[in-house]
Amino acid sequence: MTKLYTKVPLLTNFIKNIAMTSYAKRLNCTAPQKLLYSEYGDPLKVVNLSPAELRDPQPDEVVVKLLVAPVNPADINTIQGKYPSKPALPAVPGNEGVGQVIKVGANVKDLVEGDHVVPLRQNLGTWQTHLVLSKDIVLKVPQKLGVIEAATLTVNPCTAYRMLRDFTELKPGDSVIQNGSNSACGQYIIQICRSWGIRTINIIRDRPNVSDLKAYLTNLGATHVLTEEELRTTDIFKSGQINKPKLALNCVGGKNALECSRHLQNGSPMVTYGGMSREPLSVPTAALIFKDLQFRGFWMTRWSEKNATSIDRFEMYSELISMMTSNELHGPSYELVDFHNYKEALINTLTVKGMIGKKYLLKFD
Amino acid sequence: MTKLYTKVPLLTNFIKNIAMTSYAKRLNCTAPQKLLYSEYGDPLKVVNLSPAELRDPQPDEVVVKLLVAPVNPADINTIQGKYPSKPALPAVPGNEGVGQVIKVGANVKDLVEGDHVVPLRQNLGTWQTHLVLSKDIVLKVPQKLGVIEAATLTVNPCTAYRMLRDFTELKPGDSVIQNGSNSACGQYIIQICRSWGIRTINIIRDRPNVSDLKAYLTNLGATHVLTEEELRTTDIFKSGQINKPKLALNCVGGKNALECSRHLQNGSPMVTYGGMSREPLSVPTAALIFKDLQFRGFWMTRWSEKNATSIDRFEMYSELISMMTSNELHGPSYELVDFHNYKEALINTLTVKGMIGKKYLLKFD
Repeated sequence: MTKLYTKVPLLTNFIKNIAMTSYAKRLNCTAPQKLLYSEYGDPLKVVNLSPAELRDPQPDEVVVKLLVAPVNPADINTIQGKYPSKPALPAVPGNEGVGQVIKVGANVKDLVEGDHVVPLRQNLGTWQTHLVLSKDIVLKVPQKLGVIEAATLTVNPCTAYRMLRDFTELKPGDSVIQNGSNSACGQYIIQICRSWGIRTINIIRDRPNVSDLKAYLTNLGATHVLTEEELRTTDIFKSGQINKPKLALNCVGGKNALECSRHLQNGSPMVTYGGMSREPLSVPTAALIFKDLQFRGFWMTRWSEKNATSIDRFEMYSELISMMTSNELHGPSYELVDFHNYKEALINTLTVKGMIGKKYLLKFD
Repeated sequence: MTKLYTKVPLLTNFIKNIAMTSYAKRLNCTAPQKLLYSEYGDPLKVVNLSPAELRDPQPDEVVVKLLVAPVNPADINTIQGKYPSKPALPAVPGNEGVGQVIKVGANVKDLVEGDHVVPLRQNLGTWQTHLVLSKDIVLKVPQKLGVIEAATLTVNPCTAYRMLRDFTELKPGDSVIQNGSNSACGQYIIQICRSWGIRTINIIRDRPNVSDLKAYLTNLGATHVLTEEELRTTDIFKSGQINKPKLALNCVGGKNALECSRHLQNGSPMVTYGGMSREPLSVPTAALIFKDLQFRGFWMTRWSEKNATSIDRFEMYSELISMMTSNELHGPSYELVDFHNYKEALINTLTVKGMIGKKYLLKFD
């Protein structure tokens, strides 16, 4: 019995591969491939390159040839089985990317071959050469938008944007404090604030050549950059150099989050979107009762699911893309890795090092 | 020089006392007295009985003879100098009470002699025999409202009411989890929820004769009463005996607050209004990001200041008084202490013991 069950899928796959290949030939593209994992575990062991299927688009669909797809830390955690989003296995990893439309279905009016598009749904699996997608879940982006910015549009800049918009009302001259300021998201926070006239107090861990990192973040638009130690004794608030912050953004947790919250104006929120120290937040009772601080969390995945078709979502993309194409907002420091060398991108993302969170992106032919 | 400065106030006080006493005589009442403290410290040492002033009301004022005034833990902390509200010294302690109008100013139309009234502003100093108050900061209460309920109306029942109203929308059948459920506020939470059809999971510390306390709280209207240890292993949620709570109310902090928050529905708030364990809240990063739990605080003083004249405030009083006069909501377990034996009330409030938070109230002649 086992043998029979084994043989049938093999035969089916063989036929599919012939069909696929011939369809790929008609589209004049190389044979489709995908990265695939069939069990949760060490990404270097469970992720493998496999042949992929490619079919004609339905009337409302488009065929997209991927150009670039980032390897995000959340992708790694998903493969490890440590992330709340657990796709059914086997699965293709990857939540972000940018591609080029190579064929459109009969009913698709707003997209043409050659358009650059960004897929908008979670867990579509962008670590593959081609995707066939409903026209309703792709966002057309201008070709003048860099492929790096396009491929990394839907998570980090959106997280920064929403956290600055949705938890308190910020006006020019107000200030925001954040830790982990050299993270990919932290850099977007700095740049969006600069663009909106909001001042930022940016906390980083001490390190060799810390002045280089301070200069880098200041150049991005940071108002103040302080190490965690410097924050404890700073007089920038007392001396009136900057207003007490109306918002704290936390991706570290532990002692530093507590320290950041101490400087907040009464009634202000601290929004947590990461926990790099792996320590929980410690919240003093008096900060809640008498200072009326609020401790909230933000997860882009949840927001996107709730706002899949909301006007807010498309206004956000429009504003971010406009800031990017006008050079107010720059994509992350990055390195392109050939799709077939995906293990290099996985290793580098697993062992992030260096001054700023460098992003590794898979580049397709 | 020192002598001169000392003598002048003494002389002024002497003249005032004569004027005061004669006015008191005209009102046919005993000589006004007040409790007074001139420095922050041990309440038993710094609080002293002193003669008080009493004057004719201005056209918009009323003279109120106090009937009953509670000794709240916050009053003790204020005298100790440990509370965020720091009245200018010397000060008369006391934030709550009920009194009887004994004289009204020429422009006062809505109040007559004999009316029972509750003062509505913070730090008025209710631990004195008489108060002269603007008509705009007293609330007339029906005489059928018990003096204990009236004297303790503005803090604990209002705290319970607002926390159940202002942080999430609760419908009949929804559930609320709280710790420190035998506190004065906890008992109001139980009763208001019962009246509104909301189910409660009430956490208490283990103690000798815990079944007596469970029976007491169940009788008040508690749906479930669990010790902190029982909460850790309870199956009331898994077994479907009760829905996961949409709100957690915390006056304990530390480990038990964390344990309570674990049972919350995604997206729900935990509202902190006390910290009896003296331990901060520990908030896991994942609870904020992936469960979207919100950690907030509530302080009745702040709410009352912001809503001094709001419709919400008077609707709340009206609903609470209606629940009290219809016997749906009972005042705290209490003991009346003669005003002149105030030290007994201070000692007992400083060393709260017993199964439920008993309230000590000063009773005036």
